[in-house]
Amino acid sequence: MTAAVLYGKEDLRIEQVPVPSAGPGEIVVSVAAALTCGTDLKVYRRGYHAKMLKPPIPFGHELAGTVVEVGKGVRKFRVADRVVALNSAPCDACYYCRHNQQNLCDDLLFNNGAYAEYIRIPARIVEKDTLHVPDGVPFEHAALTEPLAVGVHAVEKAALKGDEAPLVVGCGPVGLAVIAALRLKGIRPIVAADFSPKRRELAVKMGADVVVNPAQGSPYAKLEPGKRAAIFECVGVPGVLQQMFEQVPRDARVVVVGVCMEPDTIEPMFGIVKELSLQFVLGYTPEEFARSLHLLADGKVDAPSLITGKIGLADVKGAFEELGNPERHTKILVEPWR
Amino acid sequence: MTAAVLYGKEDLRIEQVPVPSAGPGEIVVSVAAALTCGTDLKVYRRGYHAKMLKPPIPFGHELAGTVVEVGKGVRKFRVADRVVALNSAPCDACYYCRHNQQNLCDDLLFNNGAYAEYIRIPARIVEKDTLHVPDGVPFEHAALTEPLAVGVHAVEKAALKGDEAPLVVGCGPVGLAVIAALRLKGIRPIVAADFSPKRRELAVKMGADVVVNPAQGSPYAKLEPGKRAAIFECVGVPGVLQQMFEQVPRDARVVVVGVCMEPDTIEPMFGIVKELSLQFVLGYTPEEFARSLHLLADGKVDAPSLITGKIGLADVKGAFEELGNPERHTKILVEPWR
Repeated sequence: MTAAVLYGKEDLRIEQVPVPSAGPGEIVVSVAAALTCGTDLKVYRRGYHAKMLKPPIPFGHELAGTVVEVGKGVRKFRVADRVVALNSAPCDACYYCRHNQQNLCDDLLFNNGAYAEYIRIPARIVEKDTLHVPDGVPFEHAALTEPLAVGVHAVEKAALKGDEAPLVVGCGPVGLAVIAALRLKGIRPIVAADFSPKRRELAVKMGADVVVNPAQGSPYAKLEPGKRAAIFECVGVPGVLQQMFEQVPRDARVVVVGVCMEPDTIEPMFGIVKELSLQFVLGYTPEEFARSLHLLADGKVDAPSLITGKIGLADVKGAFEELGNPERHTKILVEPWR
Repeated sequence: MTAAVLYGKEDLRIEQVPVPSAGPGEIVVSVAAALTCGTDLKVYRRGYHAKMLKPPIPFGHELAGTVVEVGKGVRKFRVADRVVALNSAPCDACYYCRHNQQNLCDDLLFNNGAYAEYIRIPARIVEKDTLHVPDGVPFEHAALTEPLAVGVHAVEKAALKGDEAPLVVGCGPVGLAVIAALRLKGIRPIVAADFSPKRRELAVKMGADVVVNPAQGSPYAKLEPGKRAAIFECVGVPGVLQQMFEQVPRDARVVVVGVCMEPDTIEPMFGIVKELSLQFVLGYTPEEFARSLHLLADGKVDAPSLITGKIGLADVKGAFEELGNPERHTKILVEPWR
C-alpha cells in the first residue's frame, strides 16, 4: 500500500509499505479521510517531535475510515464499521487517569500513520479511544473530532466564569477550534485576532463576534471593559508570549494552547507587575473527544469551512509546503483512496 | 540629616540631605527601624528598578517610626504616634482598586527613603497605607509588616484548596514569609527547599514541616503523593522557572513570588506536556498589609528570627555587600538613630 513516512526535517516520502494486519485486540482501518494538523506542520519543519515522533515514522494522526480487519478478541467493532480513532490512548490506571486527567497519563500510547491506505489501531486505542461514526456523518467531518477536541479541552480547562472576556489570538486550526468551543458554551462576545483576512473570515464562521487584524490595532482594546481578559494563545511560536506579557491588561489569564516547540524568552517582570496567570493545556480527555464527535454529528460546528483542500496521498508532501500560507489553507483533507 | 541615596549600580552613598518637612496632608516620621529587602538588593546590584526606582533616589522602603511633624489637615496621626508606613498607595478610584485589587492600581504612588533619619510620607500614603503600631509591638517587628504581607498575599492569591501540597522553593525573606503565611492558614505539610543550612533552619522556625537541600535530593520527591503540587517560586533569578518546568510533577501550579528582573528563557513544551499553570503575584492589598501587622502584633509569626543583624546608617552600603551571603543574613535592621 502507499503511505507517507517522515524521515526528518522536510523529508516526507511517499512509499510502498506492507499492508498491516490486525493482531489480538487490534483492528485495521481503511483510511477514508485524514487531516493535516498544525503540529504536524511544525514537526515536518523540525523533523521530529520530542514526545511522540522519532523518524522514520508513519505520519498523520487525524483520521476516520472503515474497519477492514478485526483482531482476535475485539467485540466492539466489526468489518465495515465506520470509525474515528484517536492517535493515543491513556493507561486508565495511573493517578492522572483515575482523576479524569487522561491527557496527562503516565503511559500514553501513541499511534501514527493516518496518511496511508490502511492503518493498524493498537488494542488499547481500539478499546478506549476509537468511536463509531454516527450514520449520516461524512468521514471528513468525523476526522475533525480530534482538532475540535483540542478546543473543547482548552475551554474546559480555562473554566471561564461569566465575568471574563475571551480573546483568541491566532485563528489557525487550534484557534478556530477554541472559538467554536467558546461559542458552544455560550461565552460571548468572542474577540479573535489574526493577520490573515481568510482566517478572520473563518473565525466569524466559527462564532467570533469581533475580529481584529493586529496590524491595524490592538485586539486587547476590543475586549469588553470591566471584565477579566481570558486570552487563548493559539499561535505557538517564540516571541508571542512576551508580546502578550507586554500588551495584555493587568490580571489577565493566558491559556496557552498553541504548541511552541522552541525555547522562548519572557520577561517575568511584566507577568509580575500585571499579576498574570498562565495555563498551559494539552490534548483532551476521552470524554471530551466523544463529546466533540457528537457536537460535529449534531451539526453544531461549521466543520466543512475548516477543510480548504482535498488531495490524494501523492500530494501530501506538497500539502505541507502549502499549509504555511494562511490565506489558502486551514485543514487539508487527505483521501488515500483518490 | 543622614540618608542613603542610590546613584546607580552598586553606588549607594551616605549623604547629608535636608530634613524633610510636612506639606498639607503629609507627615514626617523619625525612622526607628528600616529593613533591607531582597528586591532592594537586586536593585542595588542593577542600579535601577524599571517600575519604581530611577536613580538618584533615596533608598529603602520597609519602615516603622515615630511621627515628628504633622501637616495641615492630617487628623489620623499626632506627633509622637508610632506608625508603620507602606512605600506605596493605590488611587482607590480605578477599576482594580474598586475590585479589591489595589496592588494592580492604575496609578500606584511610590515613596522611598527609609534608610534615613527622617522620611516624609505623602498624603495619599498617610491616608490609606500608614497604620498605628499597636502598643507593646517593637518597631523592628512592625517594620516586618511589609515583607510578611508579600507572603500573605501570595498565599491568598494561590487560593489553595485542601487537595494541594505546598512547596516553597527558596527560603530568603520572601520564601520565609510565604511559609509563615501558609502555616497561619493551616495548610500543611509545608515542604521548603534551600541550599543554605541557615535558611532551612529559619524555614523550620517559620513553620516548614519538611526541609530539603536541593543539592542532596529533589524537593518534589518530598511532596505528599496524591495531591496537586502548589509550588511557590521564591528565588526570582533567570533559569529557575525552566528548572521547575523540567522537574515539577504534571498538573502542578507554580506561584511566582520571586522577582526576576532579567529576561528568562523557558521551553513551553514542558509546560504543555505537563499542563502546568503559573500565577505571577505582586505586592499585597491594604487589607493584607493591615492583617499582617495584626499577625505580628499577636505574636503569630516568629519575627525576631528574620532579623539577622542590626546596623546604623553608616553601614548600609556594607550591609548590601553582605546580604548576598544566605548563611549570614536574612533581613538586616537599619537603625538610623544609632
